[in-house]
Amino acid sequence: MQNIKLRNVKGTFDFTPNEQRIRNYIQDTLKEIFEEYGYEPLETPTLCYYDVLASKYGAGAEILKEVYKLKDQGERDLALRYDLTVPFARFTAMQKDLKLPFKRYEIGKVFRDGPVKVGRNREFIQCDVDVIGVKDMMIDAEFMDLYVKAFEKLDIDIIIEYNNKKLMNGIIKEITGEDKINEVVTIVDKFKKMHKEELNKEFKNIGLSDDNIESLYTDFSLSLEDLQKKYPNNNLILEGIKEIKEVEDYLDALKIKDKTVFTPTLARGHNIYTGTVFEVFAQNSKITSSIGGGGRYDKIITNFINDGTEYPASGISFGLETIYEILKERMEHKSGIDILIVPINTKKESLVLASKLRKLGYKVDLIYNNRKLNKILNSANKEKIPYVIILGDEEVKQNIFKIKNMNSGEEREYLLENVEEVVNDI
Amino acid sequence: MQNIKLRNVKGTFDFTPNEQRIRNYIQDTLKEIFEEYGYEPLETPTLCYYDVLASKYGAGAEILKEVYKLKDQGERDLALRYDLTVPFARFTAMQKDLKLPFKRYEIGKVFRDGPVKVGRNREFIQCDVDVIGVKDMMIDAEFMDLYVKAFEKLDIDIIIEYNNKKLMNGIIKEITGEDKINEVVTIVDKFKKMHKEELNKEFKNIGLSDDNIESLYTDFSLSLEDLQKKYPNNNLILEGIKEIKEVEDYLDALKIKDKTVFTPTLARGHNIYTGTVFEVFAQNSKITSSIGGGGRYDKIITNFINDGTEYPASGISFGLETIYEILKERMEHKSGIDILIVPINTKKESLVLASKLRKLGYKVDLIYNNRKLNKILNSANKEKIPYVIILGDEEVKQNIFKIKNMNSGEEREYLLENVEEVVNDI
Repeated sequence: MQNIKLRNVKGTFDFTPNEQRIRNYIQDTLKEIFEEYGYEPLETPTLCYYDVLASKYGAGAEILKEVYKLKDQGERDLALRYDLTVPFARFTAMQKDLKLPFKRYEIGKVFRDGPVKVGRNREFIQCDVDVIGVKDMMIDAEFMDLYVKAFEKLDIDIIIEYNNKKLMNGIIKEITGEDKINEVVTIVDKFKKMHKEELNKEFKNIGLSDDNIESLYTDFSLSLEDLQKKYPNNNLILEGIKEIKEVEDYLDALKIKDKTVFTPTLARGHNIYTGTVFEVFAQNSKITSSIGGGGRYDKIITNFINDGTEYPASGISFGLETIYEILKERMEHKSGIDILIVPINTKKESLVLASKLRKLGYKVDLIYNNRKLNKILNSANKEKIPYVIILGDEEVKQNIFKIKNMNSGEEREYLLENVEEVVNDI
Repeated sequence: MQNIKLRNVKGTFDFTPNEQRIRNYIQDTLKEIFEEYGYEPLETPTLCYYDVLASKYGAGAEILKEVYKLKDQGERDLALRYDLTVPFARFTAMQKDLKLPFKRYEIGKVFRDGPVKVGRNREFIQCDVDVIGVKDMMIDAEFMDLYVKAFEKLDIDIIIEYNNKKLMNGIIKEITGEDKINEVVTIVDKFKKMHKEELNKEFKNIGLSDDNIESLYTDFSLSLEDLQKKYPNNNLILEGIKEIKEVEDYLDALKIKDKTVFTPTLARGHNIYTGTVFEVFAQNSKITSSIGGGGRYDKIITNFINDGTEYPASGISFGLETIYEILKERMEHKSGIDILIVPINTKKESLVLASKLRKLGYKVDLIYNNRKLNKILNSANKEKIPYVIILGDEEVKQNIFKIKNMNSGEEREYLLENVEEVVNDI
């Protein structure tokens, strides 16, 4: 045993109780919100067949390099899931009578054998909320409402940038033609992050003229009204604008317009999105990368199921790791324990008292080993345990116990047979 | 895409929303109990180095066959964790200043490439609660108290069988000598499951005489008092009896004696256990395999950390999959939705109403697509959604909405601006 170096795999981490408490709090809060919005839990396996997983990423061989592959004893080719979207698509495709709309969330680990950097680990928890079978823009607006309510609960001030891929693709098509759309989208997506000279260089690299480039800058700064006037016959642009206005109407009604901003250069990278896209950023935070994002992807599930029917879909993700970074900074250390019981020759009575307090819902710890009382109290103070009970044989003889408030120093006394009276005071 | 057969890996399963709701309920209930008992959450990675994992199972090459192995892009030898005990031991050994006692729980997936049968899947969730650094029998009794309280919350009637490995090993040592202990323990552990002839055959196979076998049957039916009289000089037996009596004293004080039964033939298979062992069974249930179990293992962590200090440890597991089987049988199908809103030309107002009701904590779903009202109501009935709001333009004009109780048929009316009044009624 002593020859093995104990260590964690690169890009994987232990989360200590102090850390995990925050992570559980985030997940529990989100689950509650998801269920309020009518999403139901789904759990899919971590192991999957490599061919099923690879079938989605046909073009993206880059992604497949980052997939962990393994074999079972039967020499079958397996993989660890790379995201929650493929399992979701597989699950829906395998249902014989999927009732639409299907609204589900899944929170689970995914695995990526890629470069490790801040916020990019080899295994991490993804948190996805998706619906299949709704074309109406109601759902796009409702997702933004869900974001607003979720981050209100987590006490993170946010702004949601939104756009529409039909509008963006329509503009680019007008200027550069259809075949350049994907390349241009990738560069436009960097407008916020890059200097103009760098952007120009990238545009030139893919063969755009100075005129093209100038037109792109101009069009991506026009208002929806001006775009509508400029391109009265481009159906893609007109449809994009119509969808944005529908979404905005709902945002107005929901009174969350002030939490959102129309951002015509937002593309959300992937070319999977087909309509509304949005991305969530924390305000006044050191964390500048997005903490959530999503949009409408009407083709993926349709192609995966491939039964001739159309399966419109829309969904969002929460960036649990970045949300955790924000909350971790802010949350002061708090003990997970409400009450600590210190038995002084009263092990049996202390165990019973602990059990009774636990039944009332308190988180109770006990001192099991012999330690000096002042050391116990010092560490209780350090761990910010709010209440301490020192149960001596004198107390037991009198049939009482005393709870000490560690902040105020105040002490209250109760009869051992009336433990439930504690709830009136703490 | 259409050439790939969509399927799940053998021994892995999707859990649909109806199933996952029950599974989440079990996990949430247990987490709450664990924290009440002063255990804190720890999360360890799924990926681990193969050598670290293998170091624990030195002798048990059989187990290593069932470990999923894989390599990363850097050709490092990795594995998927097989249980939660090795990550726990690794974590504690890697802490520079581990504060003892250390009480943690972990609920997480483990992976086993073994034969698939009922209750044995290739990936499944383990649920472990352990403490390092407590020698006192208080903790052994407290674990049983935790079991009783947890299963009370889950409304499963249980009986906890308990024993002590010192006592068991002491008896066997007296009869067969020390070198046969492990083999005999394995057979004694089957007393409940096998016929006497089969047991005799197994005993003979390992070379026991008829006298030996008869003595084993006799001793394993003696009371603690009789054993004490019969072996007044066997320290292992005496210590085992002393520990059992201490535990029983605590069980008496906790008033949970009636939920427990001393079972002198209980060994819990593994030879890792060094003192108290227990196993939990559901009463009046089709599920006859154990739904939990654990005990004291004072050597494992000590050997793993290997710094010359002794690290006594004790822990329990919950069999989430078997608990799920019990609850699944029993729970009637219940919708995850509290209120369904059907907009009739009132999409905007319905979306706002939904958002307000959600903020009050209700699980609210909306009809997003055009469907016939009677079809909507039929499926709401089938899914047992308790409340439905049909919001038409007439209602909006009058600034009201009506909630229909789908069980009683009763309808209540509220002003759209007083949504919060709903909480008085439902």
